[in-house]
Amino acid sequence: MLREELSNVSGKQVREAVRAKKWTRTTHGLARGYVQANLAIIPERYAFDFLRFCQRNPKPCPLLEVGDPGNPEMPRTAPGSDIRTDLPGYRVYKDGALVEEVSDIGHLWRPDHVSFLLGCSLSFDEILTDAGISQRHLNEENGRLSVYITNIACEPAGVFKGPVVAAMRPIARKDVSRAIEITSRYPLAHGGPLHVGDGRDIGISDPTKVDWGRYTPPAEDEIEVYWACGVTPQAVAMASGIPEMITHSAGHMFVTDVELSSIRT
Amino acid sequence: MLREELSNVSGKQVREAVRAKKWTRTTHGLARGYVQANLAIIPERYAFDFLRFCQRNPKPCPLLEVGDPGNPEMPRTAPGSDIRTDLPGYRVYKDGALVEEVSDIGHLWRPDHVSFLLGCSLSFDEILTDAGISQRHLNEENGRLSVYITNIACEPAGVFKGPVVAAMRPIARKDVSRAIEITSRYPLAHGGPLHVGDGRDIGISDPTKVDWGRYTPPAEDEIEVYWACGVTPQAVAMASGIPEMITHSAGHMFVTDVELSSIRT
Repeated sequence: MLREELSNVSGKQVREAVRAKKWTRTTHGLARGYVQANLAIIPERYAFDFLRFCQRNPKPCPLLEVGDPGNPEMPRTAPGSDIRTDLPGYRVYKDGALVEEVSDIGHLWRPDHVSFLLGCSLSFDEILTDAGISQRHLNEENGRLSVYITNIACEPAGVFKGPVVAAMRPIARKDVSRAIEITSRYPLAHGGPLHVGDGRDIGISDPTKVDWGRYTPPAEDEIEVYWACGVTPQAVAMASGIPEMITHSAGHMFVTDVELSSIRT
Repeated sequence: MLREELSNVSGKQVREAVRAKKWTRTTHGLARGYVQANLAIIPERYAFDFLRFCQRNPKPCPLLEVGDPGNPEMPRTAPGSDIRTDLPGYRVYKDGALVEEVSDIGHLWRPDHVSFLLGCSLSFDEILTDAGISQRHLNEENGRLSVYITNIACEPAGVFKGPVVAAMRPIARKDVSRAIEITSRYPLAHGGPLHVGDGRDIGISDPTKVDWGRYTPPAEDEIEVYWACGVTPQAVAMASGIPEMITHSAGHMFVTDVELSSIRT
């Protein structure tokens, strides 16, 4: 299946292709106009701590939907969905360590599992491109951002603590102000940037060494712009050492039926 | 103590006066420029359900801060505060019924109590007045709004369910559009209205019969405008019949150190 075949369809159609294993790769550029989401699944006994954690850290962890314990459907953002099969890749963390990557989690799902969908800055790729702001990382087949652990600490809650993770896009200096204005209108997709310019200010000493994704160096006329990233829960799973968290694989997001225009403030 | 003496002080100063029992009345018009909050305290075993409930119903239940279990301080919105003493009045609900009103809750506080602060439209009194939009209910000493149970259902979560509660302000027809524009910028204080005009559309058959507060009839040039109201958790406590919820008494709010200007979007 070609990426183009799924770029102008609905979120539901992408989920169906993923569920049927017809689409197994990253979701960037799919279902244009629809909000994509980061996933974190945790046991119910940590759910109040984690929900409080998200509430205290809305930039890295903007809440789109919180499922009911044991219910794999996300009825508000994606009616008819099944969180166990509708993402093209999952990561399983145990006691703070990544133990496996799998293509579905039907065999792992339990009645005490609670799903959290967090907004995702992949949505910005489209918004910025539509505004004529160039996104060079999109030229690569997997469209991967440069993602880093920063020295900014999340505000802890219960057992959850850890660093804010940031995704860097090189942006032409002439476009920086507009890129900020535009993304600030989407707080549910991480909103405006965390930082503009030299990453050393936020603890990134060597930008060529990404923690996730792939490094795209700024061109002559560009500057680094860092947005909070939905990989933060994975860094938090590792830093907190909680017994279990299941997330999406990097770039393999949950595609919702929520229209991007509806989350603009 | 005169209301005027506390109208241009900080949130912290109001809390100190309340804690010392120097101020025991409603908080409208106090600490101008600071955000006031509705309170709901529930046992930890219902906290994840209630937090999910708030997340699903952001208009009636906009979250300002969620405390850690057993901690009576709200360190993010009011450092040094004590939720057990810093409100001028509390209501205690048991099994869905209001059982008492008390002036502090030190004797009731337990290690499993979790405090939720929800934004409050009392903030709008000031914002609208400053914009030259007349607020006739403020002419009364207690400045009480007309508050009604509507026929709009909250989206349930776990054990929590119930109706949206709305507060009505009569607004001059010439000012309605601007009142909506202005309040829409404050989603953490309930945001834009639920409804404009005849209350029968949202299940209010006789506006003279308020469920809380006091009826202020619209004048000749005015129309009813209904905003979602932070009394909703009290209606939800009653409809859900949960074993215990402690709230503020009507109009007797928690005054934070958060500046109103900082929550404007």
